[in-house]
Amino acid sequence: MTATLSPTARTRVIRSHERAESERSALYDVLDSGMVAHLGVVIDAAPRVLPTVFAYDPDGPDLDGTLYFHGSVASRSLVDAPDQTVCLTITLVDGLVLARSGFHHSVNYRSAVVLGNPRPVDEPAERDRALDLIIDHLVPGRAETLRPPTRKDLAATTVLAVSLHEASVKARAGGANDEAFDVEAGDTWAGIVPLTVVPGAPITNPDCPPELEVPQHVRALVRKRD
Amino acid sequence: MTATLSPTARTRVIRSHERAESERSALYDVLDSGMVAHLGVVIDAAPRVLPTVFAYDPDGPDLDGTLYFHGSVASRSLVDAPDQTVCLTITLVDGLVLARSGFHHSVNYRSAVVLGNPRPVDEPAERDRALDLIIDHLVPGRAETLRPPTRKDLAATTVLAVSLHEASVKARAGGANDEAFDVEAGDTWAGIVPLTVVPGAPITNPDCPPELEVPQHVRALVRKRD
Repeated sequence: MTATLSPTARTRVIRSHERAESERSALYDVLDSGMVAHLGVVIDAAPRVLPTVFAYDPDGPDLDGTLYFHGSVASRSLVDAPDQTVCLTITLVDGLVLARSGFHHSVNYRSAVVLGNPRPVDEPAERDRALDLIIDHLVPGRAETLRPPTRKDLAATTVLAVSLHEASVKARAGGANDEAFDVEAGDTWAGIVPLTVVPGAPITNPDCPPELEVPQHVRALVRKRD
Repeated sequence: MTATLSPTARTRVIRSHERAESERSALYDVLDSGMVAHLGVVIDAAPRVLPTVFAYDPDGPDLDGTLYFHGSVASRSLVDAPDQTVCLTITLVDGLVLARSGFHHSVNYRSAVVLGNPRPVDEPAERDRALDLIIDHLVPGRAETLRPPTRKDLAATTVLAVSLHEASVKARAGGANDEAFDVEAGDTWAGIVPLTVVPGAPITNPDCPPELEVPQHVRALVRKRD
């Protein structure tokens, strides 16, 4: 594992060098906090971007660790993916930046971009682990409470892996950066409005037996993000 | 304006027909609620997906209305965009779906996909309106409180427009859908954890005069989403 992110031309942040985070820990932070990735593939020469759940293993078998994602075997973007480079982008919107001019309005965010050629994960131990990681990425601690996948479950699922080698992280934080003459005018309010994703109270499925309590790993999720 | 979304092959939802929303109002709902779009472009035959702010005008000059986005003229993905089809995907994550098996875990979401060939917006009146729409999409009512863009602001900004004609919306809502044998077993909790984006209290920029109050359109934002 390298300490800094890949400096390939494709993932070198061309604009706003000061916003490029070079530490791998910044990448893990974004991957930990993001619920869905936006997966970009090329279909008939046009880009297609679709949301997908994911997980990562910093000690996975690929160079610099492994990003896992999955889907139905019927999903066209996944079926086409192994033949080409894909892009997975995970973005957290942390706040709105309200400047004194329209031009300097912005969004506080953290965004990770990972490029790679997907590797189908067919080896049973790695595939099972990847599926557990994806569940635990949504709800930490849940995977071990579930029955193992059936043969039918597995037959309907494609698991793909991309190396975390070719990755970049970009972020913006802090208040509005205005032109000096706008600050001096002093007549327009500027600042930020933080945005947070907040989990609500769990809603039990109506087909659950009434005596079944909300498990600890679900209650912990609500407390943790509250 | 058509009442239903474009049924072109590229935006026809191939899987999960029951999740494809055919009403244009569903598209507007996603566009209204989404803070950033994920813009997909093809660079050197590989997809690149980057977050960007956006806005839309259902009565814009393009077929079925117009989606606007913008960026620095130095941004490579925008400079390359006019030559090709781009994909803008806006996704709202509404909740986690915790099923009795890993296979049936899911996310409640609403996602809009718009495909089109970007048109540079150079006509001053449309460009000014598009920039105002982008500000008001982040914070309704703010654009009219700001000074007009300077010549320098405009020279540094590329505004692009894509028709809302070739669009699709996909959504999942509701509880976990489990295998009958897992429901009958009755030993695993299933349900959903709703997720909401909540704005926090505005943080005034330190370079604001102390007498400047948080304006009404900013306070309204916090109340509306709370």
